[in-house]
Amino acid sequence: MTLQPPKKRTLVEQIVSQLERLIEEGVWPVGERIPAEPELVKELGVSRNTVREAIHALIHAGMLRTRQGDGTYVCSASSLTPVLARRLERSKLSETLEVRAALEQEGARLAALRRTPDDIAQIKAAYEDCRKAEEEGNIACYIRSDYIFHKEVIAAAHNSILSDLYDSISEAVEQVLTYGSGSLDLIRKHSVLNGRLVAAIIAQDGVESMGVVRTYIDATHEMLLEDREGGNELHHE
Amino acid sequence: MTLQPPKKRTLVEQIVSQLERLIEEGVWPVGERIPAEPELVKELGVSRNTVREAIHALIHAGMLRTRQGDGTYVCSASSLTPVLARRLERSKLSETLEVRAALEQEGARLAALRRTPDDIAQIKAAYEDCRKAEEEGNIACYIRSDYIFHKEVIAAAHNSILSDLYDSISEAVEQVLTYGSGSLDLIRKHSVLNGRLVAAIIAQDGVESMGVVRTYIDATHEMLLEDREGGNELHHE
Repeated sequence: MTLQPPKKRTLVEQIVSQLERLIEEGVWPVGERIPAEPELVKELGVSRNTVREAIHALIHAGMLRTRQGDGTYVCSASSLTPVLARRLERSKLSETLEVRAALEQEGARLAALRRTPDDIAQIKAAYEDCRKAEEEGNIACYIRSDYIFHKEVIAAAHNSILSDLYDSISEAVEQVLTYGSGSLDLIRKHSVLNGRLVAAIIAQDGVESMGVVRTYIDATHEMLLEDREGGNELHHE
Repeated sequence: MTLQPPKKRTLVEQIVSQLERLIEEGVWPVGERIPAEPELVKELGVSRNTVREAIHALIHAGMLRTRQGDGTYVCSASSLTPVLARRLERSKLSETLEVRAALEQEGARLAALRRTPDDIAQIKAAYEDCRKAEEEGNIACYIRSDYIFHKEVIAAAHNSILSDLYDSISEAVEQVLTYGSGSLDLIRKHSVLNGRLVAAIIAQDGVESMGVVRTYIDATHEMLLEDREGGNELHHE
């Protein structure tokens, strides 16, 4: 590494950082209106223009949204999600899936090592929902439950950046994969793996957790290769 | 997934997306000045205000920078890097390292499967630089060469999102880890692992590649735990 000059931060950048933190920490939750401009000016002790520019930056970053005549609302709790979503739109789906696999694999390993009793309860509940959907043969419901199940597993790794990246990528991918990929036969196979993952996490077996995820991934890739041979589109949108 | 309305994109968002792509694809390379405002207005066929707002958004996103009286320059080739850097600043170093480990592990596996002769040449050259620095006992030089070595390994996975995330995170982490973490003894151990990784990649042995990275990671975590016991700060800055 060469020497690096200390970062100069403009006033706007400092305000942006502060507001980002409020949003990421949920002090300003998704769906809620943020305080009006004059209030922010007063609280932050900076000019109206500085506040306005900071808010504009966060609108462009995809964290805030203005509703005509109704103030500014929080629309993403993560600064990463919108940027990542834009980046993924320009990428091949196979690349996105590989990155998700990388995060999921390590996430499952860490989940097995760190899961609390509360994590186990959440993971089990999500797994039960998957099982119920499977028994009912409700594919749409299975996919939704499975999405939550995997999110819960990654959450048990207790790493906020990992969760944040995983959730952002899953959201982007799920919108693409939901269509067409589900057959009851596939779901049954998938569900067996979910069960093994739950058991591995409860047993605090990191190696087995990783192995199960590895098996998922390879199955998904195989499925995608078949799709490709069938001429289906693998790119986002 | 619930139903989702189609995304409405404002004119500014569309321009932002286009300019992002030009920067990411290197049509506008890092360090170069972008065309002046009137030129962009003409070429894009939109108003001066729209162009200005799009450029402001990219300045806030950390991709562009204005130099007083000298136009606007590209300062990051990736839309992810600046956002991720800001996000990582607010996180624990241990979390960041875990995410890097996740990407590195899968990256090394894919590199073993996909490396081209050209990749091998680059990886070997970077490895030779590490070896030379090790023999000379030049720690600073070793750290720099090792950084490049690992980047080359991930590049051989041929997944641009993976590389992008890995590079962004490495950059953020390296600035923290460079200080204090290097001893000659550690470097010798590390160097042996690098050698094993090179061999595994050449042999197209994905499992061994992953295993070597796993060994790195565990060693790093152990080192960090020792540092923690020694009372060193594990947070970014």
